[in-house]
Amino acid sequence: MFFASCDPDRENLSLYSNADGSWVVSLPAEEVPPELPEPALGINFARDGMKRGDWLALVAVHSDAWLMAVAFYYSAKFSADQRKKLFDLINSLPTTYEVLSGKGGKKMKVSVFVRKKKMDEEFFAGLFFLLAATRFE
Amino acid sequence: MFFASCDPDRENLSLYSNADGSWVVSLPAEEVPPELPEPALGINFARDGMKRGDWLALVAVHSDAWLMAVAFYYSAKFSADQRKKLFDLINSLPTTYEVLSGKGGKKMKVSVFVRKKKMDEEFFAGLFFLLAATRFE
Repeated sequence: MFFASCDPDRENLSLYSNADGSWVVSLPAEEVPPELPEPALGINFARDGMKRGDWLALVAVHSDAWLMAVAFYYSAKFSADQRKKLFDLINSLPTTYEVLSGKGGKKMKVSVFVRKKKMDEEFFAGLFFLLAATRFE
Repeated sequence: MFFASCDPDRENLSLYSNADGSWVVSLPAEEVPPELPEPALGINFARDGMKRGDWLALVAVHSDAWLMAVAFYYSAKFSADQRKKLFDLINSLPTTYEVLSGKGGKKMKVSVFVRKKKMDEEFFAGLFFLLAATRFE
């Protein structure tokens, strides 16, 4: 259970998404600077100082921000047009925060699809976050 | 000078952008979880293990990813249409990486504008990152 895994007595923890769409609460990357943008650190420390709903919203908003960072980190070599296409794909789905707050349609599992796509003249790893929902609890 | 300020003998450092458009190399936020998404940690540790150009590119790509995270963290309550407008504004300017690699037009200082704008029925803090360039060195 997400709530229990965020024990404030543990070290600094972050919520990571795996490429298969699952989420896991884990210690931060040991590598510094990290290979990829890192999600918000220490979400467990905030757990018991806030209303549960507010805390879940905070984690969801940080997770959405982090997914954008990862997507645009991977697409650093995209052209502006390619970035726009990527953004439109991401934006065609509700954010984690919207789903959590009931604005994003029915609850479902977060899915993250990574696919390669030929864009213009070059191959890039096209990272399409097909965000839907997550049941944190 | 950016290069000198990233001394690998110092602690974990990150490159932050201030609201006035200036950039500063600094220790990470003490607050955990942080109030805002945090930029890549420990950029100074990578400085001397890479070619200077590759290292600058790495920092630029991490900075672009971080700015996206901050923009979409602030706009968590935006609708999909509002997120699209925000993205189009951001995307109308070259990324830091593009400017660094000479694909983004002439070099100039990175500017970050924060303004409030009335969108649809509600007021939101509209964060428009008018990214241009930066002279890191």
